[in-house]
Amino acid sequence: MPETLHVHFLPQLTSPEELAGRHVVVVDVLRATTTICHALAHGVRAVVPCLEIDEARQRAARYAPGEVVLGGERGGLPIDGFDLGNSPDEYTPDAVGGKIVVFTTSNGTRALAHCHKAERVLLGALVNLRAVCAQLEGAAHVDLLCAGTGGRVTRVDVLAAGAIVERLTRDVESAPEINDPAYLARDAWRSVEAAADGQSLIERLSVELRATRGGRNLLGIGHGSDLEVAAQIDKFSIVPQFDPQRDEIRLP
Amino acid sequence: MPETLHVHFLPQLTSPEELAGRHVVVVDVLRATTTICHALAHGVRAVVPCLEIDEARQRAARYAPGEVVLGGERGGLPIDGFDLGNSPDEYTPDAVGGKIVVFTTSNGTRALAHCHKAERVLLGALVNLRAVCAQLEGAAHVDLLCAGTGGRVTRVDVLAAGAIVERLTRDVESAPEINDPAYLARDAWRSVEAAADGQSLIERLSVELRATRGGRNLLGIGHGSDLEVAAQIDKFSIVPQFDPQRDEIRLP
Repeated sequence: MPETLHVHFLPQLTSPEELAGRHVVVVDVLRATTTICHALAHGVRAVVPCLEIDEARQRAARYAPGEVVLGGERGGLPIDGFDLGNSPDEYTPDAVGGKIVVFTTSNGTRALAHCHKAERVLLGALVNLRAVCAQLEGAAHVDLLCAGTGGRVTRVDVLAAGAIVERLTRDVESAPEINDPAYLARDAWRSVEAAADGQSLIERLSVELRATRGGRNLLGIGHGSDLEVAAQIDKFSIVPQFDPQRDEIRLP
Repeated sequence: MPETLHVHFLPQLTSPEELAGRHVVVVDVLRATTTICHALAHGVRAVVPCLEIDEARQRAARYAPGEVVLGGERGGLPIDGFDLGNSPDEYTPDAVGGKIVVFTTSNGTRALAHCHKAERVLLGALVNLRAVCAQLEGAAHVDLLCAGTGGRVTRVDVLAAGAIVERLTRDVESAPEINDPAYLARDAWRSVEAAADGQSLIERLSVELRATRGGRNLLGIGHGSDLEVAAQIDKFSIVPQFDPQRDEIRLP
């Protein structure tokens, strides 16, 4: 169990210095961290995160054709000339198994860029909650970094962070020092759990996600099915890890 | 019932332009908006908010001695040479009745400075929740602006905002468009309500406040009793209103 457990609702509300030496979990449920979990679970060798589209094209050009897949989004939509968008369902074993994915999304990538001084950087989503918590056993200082959307707080990222706080602080002997946003995230998560009331939590989350700004945006562009995929708590037992030196996300 | 209802966890997460033409409630429960409610309920004619200590001294010097009281804090503590600190209990009818209070606190004042283009600026706290909600009847576009603490999200401000969202959206025919932070604030508030479980909500809030950063700070400087005072939901039926042109807070 951690000694300190902090949640940050947005990258701009913390700094690389504050995250230095800490165990950081980057959360971008709709959809970057969910999609990256799918990609790595389905046999991708590494995901290379890029902030800019041109940078992604240049990084992809370093690999032999057939070895690399270009993926990502702008405004939720696929990028011209890219192989794949940002729907988890596109990252099937057939499409990406054994390959490198060069990936560009605005929010998730920006959050990762905040973590270059961290001790360890994990990627968390609803689909790998339990595995993330298991990875944090023994970590003294934990920060959960919500990616948000264009500088706006995103409800589902905060809920996922709250679920991690809840699991890390339940039935522990000595409570960690947790910051106000961590309390709020846990409060919010407990409220959604309570609202499930007979429904499965996954069903409830699917409903809640539809009411969020990100959910409405995805429904608007015909990606409503991504919400059900993103809500599949503990679907995977993997935890993607970001290596700031190599600028790559891999399974440890 | 509003058409749109937005919560902002910190002033820096919104802008004067975004708040232009809207009905804004500034929330700084520990302690500025709570203390200003006490001051106005106890007969203060107007509160003049100042960002800087020197500015406060200059503003106070414009009034006749005996007509004005200097109040405020830095780091929770009284300011050298000021008449009063920032404890609600200090603002008794004897101490402040009939006077002008020139008041400087960092967070609440900074939040007010964000509101100069708003249609109307109200001050909200737990002590005047119901009155604030009544004042918002008929307002089409409502923003709840949490003051935070030194640029950090403050749990009790978000909880108070969540209580307002809950009251404004309960039992309404057509739901307003609410943003993700408004959902999160309402989630968090519901979770605290549920946790009361037999305890009175005021008792529960007093307990919760002790676990927040602001609460711990106040306990540390011997102001723990301010937490019980701040938790007194609906103690007052007044709503202080800020006039950006005159730079004063009065009862309407």
